[in-house]
Amino acid sequence: MAIEGNSTSKTSRRLRLGMVGGGRGSFIGAVHRIAARLDDRFELVAGALSSDPTRAKASAVELYISEDRAYTDFREMAKSEAAREDGIDVVSIVTPNNMHFAPAKAFLEAGINVICDKPMTLNSAEAEELASIVEKSGKIFALTHNYTGYPMVRQARQMIAEGALGNIRVIHVEYPQDWLTTKQEGADNKQANWRTDPKQSGAGGCIGDIGTHAYNLANFITGLKVTELCAELTTFVEGRALDDNAQIMLRYGNGARGMLWSSQVAPGNENSLKIRVYGEKAGLEWSQEDPNYLLFSPFGEQPRRITRGGPGNFPVAEAGTRIPPGHPEGYLEGFANLYSDIADMIMFETENLVPTVYDGLDGLKFIEAAVASSNEGAVWKAL
Amino acid sequence: MAIEGNSTSKTSRRLRLGMVGGGRGSFIGAVHRIAARLDDRFELVAGALSSDPTRAKASAVELYISEDRAYTDFREMAKSEAAREDGIDVVSIVTPNNMHFAPAKAFLEAGINVICDKPMTLNSAEAEELASIVEKSGKIFALTHNYTGYPMVRQARQMIAEGALGNIRVIHVEYPQDWLTTKQEGADNKQANWRTDPKQSGAGGCIGDIGTHAYNLANFITGLKVTELCAELTTFVEGRALDDNAQIMLRYGNGARGMLWSSQVAPGNENSLKIRVYGEKAGLEWSQEDPNYLLFSPFGEQPRRITRGGPGNFPVAEAGTRIPPGHPEGYLEGFANLYSDIADMIMFETENLVPTVYDGLDGLKFIEAAVASSNEGAVWKAL
Amino acid sequence: MAIEGNSTSKTSRRLRLGMVGGGRGSFIGAVHRIAARLDDRFELVAGALSSDPTRAKASAVELYISEDRAYTDFREMAKSEAAREDGIDVVSIVTPNNMHFAPAKAFLEAGINVICDKPMTLNSAEAEELASIVEKSGKIFALTHNYTGYPMVRQARQMIAEGALGNIRVIHVEYPQDWLTTKQEGADNKQANWRTDPKQSGAGGCIGDIGTHAYNLANFITGLKVTELCAELTTFVEGRALDDNAQIMLRYGNGARGMLWSSQVAPGNENSLKIRVYGEKAGLEWSQEDPNYLLFSPFGEQPRRITRGGPGNFPVAEAGTRIPPGHPEGYLEGFANLYSDIADMIMFETENLVPTVYDGLDGLKFIEAAVASSNEGAVWKAL
Amino acid sequence: MAIEGNSTSKTSRRLRLGMVGGGRGSFIGAVHRIAARLDDRFELVAGALSSDPTRAKASAVELYISEDRAYTDFREMAKSEAAREDGIDVVSIVTPNNMHFAPAKAFLEAGINVICDKPMTLNSAEAEELASIVEKSGKIFALTHNYTGYPMVRQARQMIAEGALGNIRVIHVEYPQDWLTTKQEGADNKQANWRTDPKQSGAGGCIGDIGTHAYNLANFITGLKVTELCAELTTFVEGRALDDNAQIMLRYGNGARGMLWSSQVAPGNENSLKIRVYGEKAGLEWSQEDPNYLLFSPFGEQPRRITRGGPGNFPVAEAGTRIPPGHPEGYLEGFANLYSDIADMIMFETENLVPTVYDGLDGLKFIEAAVASSNEGAVWKAL
Repeated sequence: MAIEGNSTSKTSRRLRLGMVGGGRGSFIGAVHRIAARLDDRFELVAGALSSDPTRAKASAVELYISEDRAYTDFREMAKSEAAREDGIDVVSIVTPNNMHFAPAKAFLEAGINVICDKPMTLNSAEAEELASIVEKSGKIFALTHNYTGYPMVRQARQMIAEGALGNIRVIHVEYPQDWLTTKQEGADNKQANWRTDPKQSGAGGCIGDIGTHAYNLANFITGLKVTELCAELTTFVEGRALDDNAQIMLRYGNGARGMLWSSQVAPGNENSLKIRVYGEKAGLEWSQEDPNYLLFSPFGEQPRRITRGGPGNFPVAEAGTRIPPGHPEGYLEGFANLYSDIADMIMFETENLVPTVYDGLDGLKFIEAAVASSNEGAVWKAL
Repeated sequence: MAIEGNSTSKTSRRLRLGMVGGGRGSFIGAVHRIAARLDDRFELVAGALSSDPTRAKASAVELYISEDRAYTDFREMAKSEAAREDGIDVVSIVTPNNMHFAPAKAFLEAGINVICDKPMTLNSAEAEELASIVEKSGKIFALTHNYTGYPMVRQARQMIAEGALGNIRVIHVEYPQDWLTTKQEGADNKQANWRTDPKQSGAGGCIGDIGTHAYNLANFITGLKVTELCAELTTFVEGRALDDNAQIMLRYGNGARGMLWSSQVAPGNENSLKIRVYGEKAGLEWSQEDPNYLLFSPFGEQPRRITRGGPGNFPVAEAGTRIPPGHPEGYLEGFANLYSDIADMIMFETENLVPTVYDGLDGLKFIEAAVASSNEGAVWKAL
Repeated sequence: MAIEGNSTSKTSRRLRLGMVGGGRGSFIGAVHRIAARLDDRFELVAGALSSDPTRAKASAVELYISEDRAYTDFREMAKSEAAREDGIDVVSIVTPNNMHFAPAKAFLEAGINVICDKPMTLNSAEAEELASIVEKSGKIFALTHNYTGYPMVRQARQMIAEGALGNIRVIHVEYPQDWLTTKQEGADNKQANWRTDPKQSGAGGCIGDIGTHAYNLANFITGLKVTELCAELTTFVEGRALDDNAQIMLRYGNGARGMLWSSQVAPGNENSLKIRVYGEKAGLEWSQEDPNYLLFSPFGEQPRRITRGGPGNFPVAEAGTRIPPGHPEGYLEGFANLYSDIADMIMFETENLVPTVYDGLDGLKFIEAAVASSNEGAVWKAL
Repeated sequence: MAIEGNSTSKTSRRLRLGMVGGGRGSFIGAVHRIAARLDDRFELVAGALSSDPTRAKASAVELYISEDRAYTDFREMAKSEAAREDGIDVVSIVTPNNMHFAPAKAFLEAGINVICDKPMTLNSAEAEELASIVEKSGKIFALTHNYTGYPMVRQARQMIAEGALGNIRVIHVEYPQDWLTTKQEGADNKQANWRTDPKQSGAGGCIGDIGTHAYNLANFITGLKVTELCAELTTFVEGRALDDNAQIMLRYGNGARGMLWSSQVAPGNENSLKIRVYGEKAGLEWSQEDPNYLLFSPFGEQPRRITRGGPGNFPVAEAGTRIPPGHPEGYLEGFANLYSDIADMIMFETENLVPTVYDGLDGLKFIEAAVASSNEGAVWKAL
């Protein structure tokens, strides 16, 4: 192979990680654990993996967590871990949306750093409150908008920041899936059930589950802010309680115009998150399903393919690269980049690109504005 | 090679074709001529190729048109040709938009069939009037929304008509280009000049030039009608008189939701017309830049690639296929399919898929609704 | 659209074209006719379309050929046309391989220019003789290795000639198809029958039908000559008389090494002719099924996509371009570029890139060397 | 997301892993460690990471290895670890090729399982000896031909085994890279230096480094054995001691024919390992750079895309899948699948697909046959 692997700066010890949620049958819990493990910066030592004691214990055993640190209650966990000399450095909250706020509050107030899945809370009121809790706590709060961890996404962000596209004019971002094309909820599909339940998910269905990823990604890459939106949310599958398709027009502060589409009823789409940005001088495309490449098209010139680890990578992209170009890194590696950044934040107080509580608040405002816009017939709403 | 070439039903003589516009420096005139010639069903015998006599004559010579049929005035041409025993069977009108109505009227009223470029007229009032002229005339009026001529577009249309997708839910259609990213007009770029001039193009810039193609394509393929739209038209290049970017949300009569994007300021896009349609049962994708393929994704099954001329083609797709799969046919061949269909209409009075004066009227209504919506701040307008 | 269409230099009259072969049921005859017609430089006025009189006449009628010029015998046609004041300028020979030599000889000796399909003759002895007939005649002999007509192929050729790749090291060319995966011959599949019949095709099956295209393309693009080859020809379908798969290693005069694969039993391949060339400084890729693009990869830099009609095109590529980038041109347009070049050769005696009788001879030597190599157990043979 | 993550059967403890080689500056050592960690089945507790004591110690600290288990001599390590109650269960050998045999022997003879990088040894004599050592030891010996760990590769293998392609006729496998296009060795490029040094790499350069991967992959997927080969190895870069380009024709036992190309001088290629297999009934394609998909083309039907985790996956593919389709898994995940399989072998004595010492021996025979063939002028050699 052509180049040396990425050598993440290593440290004297692994950080001690706890987890809330993520027991047997959880999808995202396993993802967080792999991401935490990949660069060997964390060890999972405690968990409130389930509110069901049997399930909590069984899950803990499988994860090599010692019995005394297999909790069934997150409040007890926060208290106990804060009291231990070898208590956890940070906790990952990987429960459904309605169970983000309370654990986050508990751990932050116990003086423990928090990693939280998105959307951050059930609504923006909770999000506002959480932001002030984070501020008061002085602890780290990291939101896992994991797509920001892909090296080529970070490369794109910096290219735009450095003016490679000139002033941005047009943004297209989309995130179609197909797995809810028919009614999956109601049966024992745990993933479908909570995602289509307003009590657990909040006001947004598809818009909250994946639309926020698209929204966050566009903001992250362009550095622009949406000022107004006009949203048409639709529920195509009969009997579903939340939207399963969202079409949104966006106005950005600098005059740019955007379109955002997210769907869970688009057959043939798996996780087709894709962004295209056009400026006065060039265009840029990135697709999550082919994440190691970036297409850069300066106006009037031949389009160029930028490869992860290849010519023209900025340090910010190289930092998240473990293996040479042509050996694909994927979703788990991108997710792991967030975890490694969080380890750096905790150990070295470095500044970095990990999404914060304010990104989480922004995401909730986006969901609420979209729902309000749609409820009023798809009219423009300020954000 | 594996299969026999397409044998279009041949006839005892070529149809006699005239042309209005399309002299030296015209892009679309040359395209119409190649399309007319490709299947050897037409011969170009008369033309009012330019209002400038020298240019008209020089162009005629290059096109082997005899001197006495090289006109400088389309009215004179209509009259003379109608009077000749060997007069033209049909005329192609390939002038800028503001010069469609008058020639179309003149030839129809002289009893001559008309092929007309899109958008059909300068506004919907002209379009309404033209529709009634066509009705009165009893002659054929064909509108060259040429993308409907691609075999895989026709295949898609029939697949949907036969229920392969079930009830349609979501439609995404887009047509981005990049050639107007900077100011091209004002200099000697004839193509840019008339397309950005409201007097020649009408109320729509990008929306009229290519947005209508996208709109027409979505209607053609799905068989659905838009009932309401909400449009955001933007002019990004300073000093430009018409829109160069259009973002539109669409509501269809059956409850389907659509998004349409057309742009002429999206660097890296040449003629990236692309449509994706999602129904209860399957998804379907087609891209103009890779037109020989159709991606068909039945929900829960492996996606399949349908090839022009390959397994599963309907007769309507095979009819527009000249050479075996893997030997690409392109834009000119798709355009030629319209001409061959028109030849059949004239000679055999067959029914077919060629866009009509009513499609043209619909297109003008679309442009006007989009402009009105955008002017009022991007509000919903009935169509 | 962004740019003006290509304006081929036009002339005072169309060239008069005759055709030998290409009657009803012929694939390649129809292709030649479309190619001849596309740029309006030829009119088909005479033909010996079939040796069967009924078929010859019926075919002629369909092609608007007048009765007195619908011949059943090519020798009579050569004689009659040579004698007419308005006799044909050039004849296209589109019969099976065994019927190339005799007509070519007859027309050349009658003083008529010849366009001939490939492989040029049944064997290299005929090819040598034909070369000397051409030389004596002083007439034009053009061989339709049509893939050389694609603009991006000509662009590639010139890039290499100008040193964009440095010294060439490695060449990979392949042409897989799948239509003979099962036994097609023996039934009424005319295309399969003659292509698998040594009497009509000569010593090579797949190697002669499409392997020669791959061989010619590599030579055309690189400007290099093969000095030795080692070939493994295989017949996978039981009862087939000729090879249906050919794998060949190549040594070039400059020290470059090549691999050539052609197959007619590779399911999923339609006409997947593809070439990759690697030099000291860069790599270059082109695929016939996506012919409007060229991938150029300078070592250590970001790969670039070159588009037909886009930035960086040489005049030789622009000359074969009719419509703007993003509107695909395909197989017929590439084929038509040869015909337009031939029209220029006849009318203006211009030099150009159209394959000659010597390329045809080279192709026959290649087939014979490959067959001999394979027959002796796949040993190296000088070419 | 649509589906649950993969739940590898978990066990009561992690296996204790040692490593020989893989200190600072090693590429493949870091890869092995991530692979071992990904599914949390191993913990790295001991290492002879470098023969340089300072480097060995520093590397160990970075990897959280305790001081008393940071060895500088692999023999000492084998002895000490075998004697400990908490000694390692298995060792990974990730040194250059010339340093595989001796450590493998030492650990096997100490009763410790071995994971070894490829090519297995310096030559086939060593390989033969190693095979008999493995047999005598009764321990597990696993060879990291890591590409066999990709789920879609295993899917392909089983599809072929179950007859989806019918009898195999044609195999094309290639592995081009470009990083040695110019002379990299001689400077401080450690990766280039040992790979181009016959003392460290053995008789093969490119053929040994990546050609063996291609060879192994074709055998793994098809289940076929090569009986004869004809190889042309070339050194294009002046002063290089080993081949940097290899072109090989293959004959398989069942009559199938193959071509293999590996290169390190092909600009634009990163790690373009690609295999295409054609049988009587269908074709199958897989590309390492886009590893989550498999293209399946039954003859006469529409080609289908098989996705990792999607419809039609066999259990053998699902077992190596952690996250839903559309969220790409890459090189590290494929590598990790081998490690998880090895954990299963050690803990549960399950049978599986991990390459063995006999695959390693086969690879050495392949390299030696290729070198011999090429040295004699590219003649056929039995394998």
